[in-house]
Amino acid sequence: MNFASDTSAPAHPKVLEAVLAANEGSAASYGADLWTTKAGSVLCDLFETDLAVTFVSSGTAANALALSILCSPDGAVICHENAHINRDERGAPEFYTQGGKLLLLPGAHDKISIKSLQPLLTTIDRSFVHETPAEVLSLSQLGEAGTAYDVSEVSSLCDMAHTAGLHTHMDGARLANALVNTTASPADMTWRAGIDVLSFGFTKNGAMGAEAVILFGDMVKRFDTLEARRKRGGHMPPKQRFIAAQVLAMLEDELWLKLAAHANAMASTLADGFSHAGAKLQHPVQGNEVFVCLDDGQADALRTAGAQFYDWPDGSARFVTSWDTKKADVQAALAVLA
Amino acid sequence: MNFASDTSAPAHPKVLEAVLAANEGSAASYGADLWTTKAGSVLCDLFETDLAVTFVSSGTAANALALSILCSPDGAVICHENAHINRDERGAPEFYTQGGKLLLLPGAHDKISIKSLQPLLTTIDRSFVHETPAEVLSLSQLGEAGTAYDVSEVSSLCDMAHTAGLHTHMDGARLANALVNTTASPADMTWRAGIDVLSFGFTKNGAMGAEAVILFGDMVKRFDTLEARRKRGGHMPPKQRFIAAQVLAMLEDELWLKLAAHANAMASTLADGFSHAGAKLQHPVQGNEVFVCLDDGQADALRTAGAQFYDWPDGSARFVTSWDTKKADVQAALAVLA
Amino acid sequence: MNFASDTSAPAHPKVLEAVLAANEGSAASYGADLWTTKAGSVLCDLFETDLAVTFVSSGTAANALALSILCSPDGAVICHENAHINRDERGAPEFYTQGGKLLLLPGAHDKISIKSLQPLLTTIDRSFVHETPAEVLSLSQLGEAGTAYDVSEVSSLCDMAHTAGLHTHMDGARLANALVNTTASPADMTWRAGIDVLSFGFTKNGAMGAEAVILFGDMVKRFDTLEARRKRGGHMPPKQRFIAAQVLAMLEDELWLKLAAHANAMASTLADGFSHAGAKLQHPVQGNEVFVCLDDGQADALRTAGAQFYDWPDGSARFVTSWDTKKADVQAALAVLA
Amino acid sequence: MNFASDTSAPAHPKVLEAVLAANEGSAASYGADLWTTKAGSVLCDLFETDLAVTFVSSGTAANALALSILCSPDGAVICHENAHINRDERGAPEFYTQGGKLLLLPGAHDKISIKSLQPLLTTIDRSFVHETPAEVLSLSQLGEAGTAYDVSEVSSLCDMAHTAGLHTHMDGARLANALVNTTASPADMTWRAGIDVLSFGFTKNGAMGAEAVILFGDMVKRFDTLEARRKRGGHMPPKQRFIAAQVLAMLEDELWLKLAAHANAMASTLADGFSHAGAKLQHPVQGNEVFVCLDDGQADALRTAGAQFYDWPDGSARFVTSWDTKKADVQAALAVLA
Repeated sequence: MNFASDTSAPAHPKVLEAVLAANEGSAASYGADLWTTKAGSVLCDLFETDLAVTFVSSGTAANALALSILCSPDGAVICHENAHINRDERGAPEFYTQGGKLLLLPGAHDKISIKSLQPLLTTIDRSFVHETPAEVLSLSQLGEAGTAYDVSEVSSLCDMAHTAGLHTHMDGARLANALVNTTASPADMTWRAGIDVLSFGFTKNGAMGAEAVILFGDMVKRFDTLEARRKRGGHMPPKQRFIAAQVLAMLEDELWLKLAAHANAMASTLADGFSHAGAKLQHPVQGNEVFVCLDDGQADALRTAGAQFYDWPDGSARFVTSWDTKKADVQAALAVLA
Repeated sequence: MNFASDTSAPAHPKVLEAVLAANEGSAASYGADLWTTKAGSVLCDLFETDLAVTFVSSGTAANALALSILCSPDGAVICHENAHINRDERGAPEFYTQGGKLLLLPGAHDKISIKSLQPLLTTIDRSFVHETPAEVLSLSQLGEAGTAYDVSEVSSLCDMAHTAGLHTHMDGARLANALVNTTASPADMTWRAGIDVLSFGFTKNGAMGAEAVILFGDMVKRFDTLEARRKRGGHMPPKQRFIAAQVLAMLEDELWLKLAAHANAMASTLADGFSHAGAKLQHPVQGNEVFVCLDDGQADALRTAGAQFYDWPDGSARFVTSWDTKKADVQAALAVLA
Repeated sequence: MNFASDTSAPAHPKVLEAVLAANEGSAASYGADLWTTKAGSVLCDLFETDLAVTFVSSGTAANALALSILCSPDGAVICHENAHINRDERGAPEFYTQGGKLLLLPGAHDKISIKSLQPLLTTIDRSFVHETPAEVLSLSQLGEAGTAYDVSEVSSLCDMAHTAGLHTHMDGARLANALVNTTASPADMTWRAGIDVLSFGFTKNGAMGAEAVILFGDMVKRFDTLEARRKRGGHMPPKQRFIAAQVLAMLEDELWLKLAAHANAMASTLADGFSHAGAKLQHPVQGNEVFVCLDDGQADALRTAGAQFYDWPDGSARFVTSWDTKKADVQAALAVLA
Repeated sequence: MNFASDTSAPAHPKVLEAVLAANEGSAASYGADLWTTKAGSVLCDLFETDLAVTFVSSGTAANALALSILCSPDGAVICHENAHINRDERGAPEFYTQGGKLLLLPGAHDKISIKSLQPLLTTIDRSFVHETPAEVLSLSQLGEAGTAYDVSEVSSLCDMAHTAGLHTHMDGARLANALVNTTASPADMTWRAGIDVLSFGFTKNGAMGAEAVILFGDMVKRFDTLEARRKRGGHMPPKQRFIAAQVLAMLEDELWLKLAAHANAMASTLADGFSHAGAKLQHPVQGNEVFVCLDDGQADALRTAGAQFYDWPDGSARFVTSWDTKKADVQAALAVLA
């Protein structure tokens, strides 16, 4: 009954099969291998557009590198105050942007609202040299409260950002989980809605350690800078085929969507069960995370029964499901509360 | 006939077996897993001392993180002018040390000599605020010319550095290759000879992507800072068990030494063959790299026959062997020159 | 009628006299001059303690250098959300701390309250490597709303910070203005109340360009690092005597307090006049700044009459007085509203 | 007999007169004052071209800010191994460029030669992501050995740099001293010879503390970034009129050239006297610095007589003259050796 995090899950067997299959003979190093080339090509197909992509092994690296080519050292990134890039990456965005600032917005269910973004954008005065101007808007799919922006929200927020002269970034560490609850395509949810650079996560969704940084449209021109920063950050692995092979496995036959769909279904079952047991959900469940208000007795009973989950700063309990969450574990957890 | 680099080699089957075996059930993330703990314990045994260790997936990350806890932003690292940290890491040491300088020393066969180090150390004047004082000495095993320091050289250089108030770092990306040609133990070659922090490489020697940063003696106190920087650099992978499992596989039954011994033997055979064919060796062969002066006809003939190798800036040709280099390939290459 | 800023004021004649007097013959450069030594000694007397001090020519430099020796690149500084270091220094603290974060607290009249600081300190978990821990508390005298902390407030906040393992910094760009309204001594308001490092401003109060960074108590040990960073930041002027001479002039015969007393008196008169005219004061007037809610007619009339002042983001109008503000100007401004 | 450094000299009386004259009434702060505007305009005339300029108070700040807009964090600056930016600025270029590297060239009399620059430029391979590519060539007038590049040398070196895709910077801390020994105009020696960005020094030549960073041609577009970095570095003084007024005083009636001519004449007299006394000059004297090989007896005799000068790392003794060097002091020094 491990609901601590989807990062605790193992890798999907097909990912490991692909890694094994890639382990044949010599291959050009540092990304000049065929797996990397093919993964780029598959991603072009998936996103229905030309794009530039590079691969790294952690989400923090993906986000920080992405932001480093969008935000100057003298600029700022707008994000939600609870965004992963602000709360859980130990200053990686500040490190990779060389001292760029994060401008924090509040917002219900850890989502940035149009209403809070607009006034912040209005106050940007690039001629006022004393204040750090926003240069990027970063949105998280899923957000830290497990909620998702729908396509129209992404589109509205990106429009506002672009109008104000900002670039846009999506931290898509759980993009798959955000997508499977919608009918939107990957393209709809990202560049068609105005996203310039995407951190596309596979690790939480079933890879061993594989994330893509994808540059759309004009941003493709910044690929050389991205690669320089990737090398400089120590994120250009000598044997890169082993990362690219994971991505290929995840994308084959829509495995990534199937795994996310399973995780989401498990979260949904869990949430329904919690509700039936009379426990209040703290946030809408729109992916593979459930935040629920348990009383102490309930929490203790669950832990005694072997359930792992986190107490969240807002007072709720966080349960994360994964591609590997067993239905039996969900049922066992709910049985404790029944 | 791929002699381009040991980074082009696949991973050893036992490494992948270990990764597969680690892919069972859930495990605590970000390094709190059992594989990481066990790998640390095995390294303590191997180095016959208490130590602190963390794992990353590239040598550049290992070196840059190691240097970041030894060199302040206002300080400098002494290294050979051809050191990997100076020539091949795109400024990663400067990035992770936040602007620390590299002070470059010349030296035959890409080794720092006592004779060139002494005068540099003598000129350090920490009270002269205008000049950046050296704070670290970094030695490479193997160096970029494929040569190795022996234990007495490491010991003398570290003594001088310590006397001058510096800390010491070893870039051991090919430490295994340096060790198997000696009777020295890992402890003899590192902390007993005065090394404070070691980048211990496994990737070039047979792993998929696994490097250890090891803190000896007093440096253990800096482990928390190292971990903060590792997180901040994006090098704390969610599913770290897959890196630690590689290290465990490499260390089991001395696999790492056996693989390096094979690579070295192949280099030795290649070097002997080159010499017999009348080609001059540019540097002593003390590991798995051979630098040889070929005439254009020889180089062309080898490439026509399918051999891959690099033209080196010094005019020689670089051949790198690996754990996976086939004797037949070596013989085929030599046959071309015969 | 220039109420735009005290930075618009000229320098006091005695400051220029001192600069002229210092312009005799050769003097050791980069701070080895006698004026620098004497200014340090006078500051020891003024603060009734041993201390280490260095001089720079802008408040932004003073703050950023001070924070750079208190906050590691992986750490954070707690400050008010409207603090000068957050809003008006273009990311200088992030630059000099090499990517440290600012953790922002709200608070009435731009002051940090015990009530808002306590919960933030409680959540610091130094063992949680993912989150950036606070390492410094920075208080501003005056704050951006022109208000001052009294000694007991500084003392309580510093106690809390120290208990939580933080260091403390005071941005004293207008420390003089905060002091003259109290009976507290400079020592009472700073190190005796728990301040570790002080940015002590003279520029706004009558100097041409002179600020001191003062290290108290244990922080004295960090003086060499401060000097290295000062040099590296380009803030170690070759002819430093001209800065130190300004400081000496300001400190002689309590000129600094007399100038601040005048500026405060002018602000007080202005504030009283505004109140009499029925205009609401936005914040208590505790120094040389008045924030007043004017209707459009009033603001227009004042500007038509030649008054310079700023519209503040909170909707009020900011009037700043200085050592050079003429009583006649204050009366002229008030006459407009009468 | 102070020949320690031109930074030990006082400011010229006309500079202080100008500062006093500027101290009238209120003035817009942070560079919006009339003195700053006028100084920009006078510099346009002097350099016979449109340009953008900003002012700071130290040469280290001028150089580091200039380089920060020319060199990316992933790039490198080519300079002489003894350049001030490498040896005497405590890593300021690395700090302001956020980790850019300095690529060092040897060269007689501390000048970069075409012969050593060409091979370095030839090896730049921007497609090789592992190595840091040179992005800037920085030349010093005077160099650290007191020598000057003539216009044709500057022109040849800049041509080569531009052809290789680099930008060019001149550290003109002693540009005046380099110019007065030639018939070249300021324009000839800088932008007409291919310099993109100039650090133009006044402090060593008679100001209290005033340096200009001048952007020529296309570089003018980077002015906003320069200003952002200047603010962020703490180098945008609130009362900037006092810096601009110094620059205006120095430029009026060619005072800057007259002062440099005097300093150079004193150096020349000193050098001739040393030669007559049989002491060998270490470098050609092309400005206000004399490097001479003294035996211990001579050095002791001079010091006993009260002469101040530095022992240089190359074994020679450095004598620096200034606008304020008295002929009597030069004669007294020479009398000791006679």
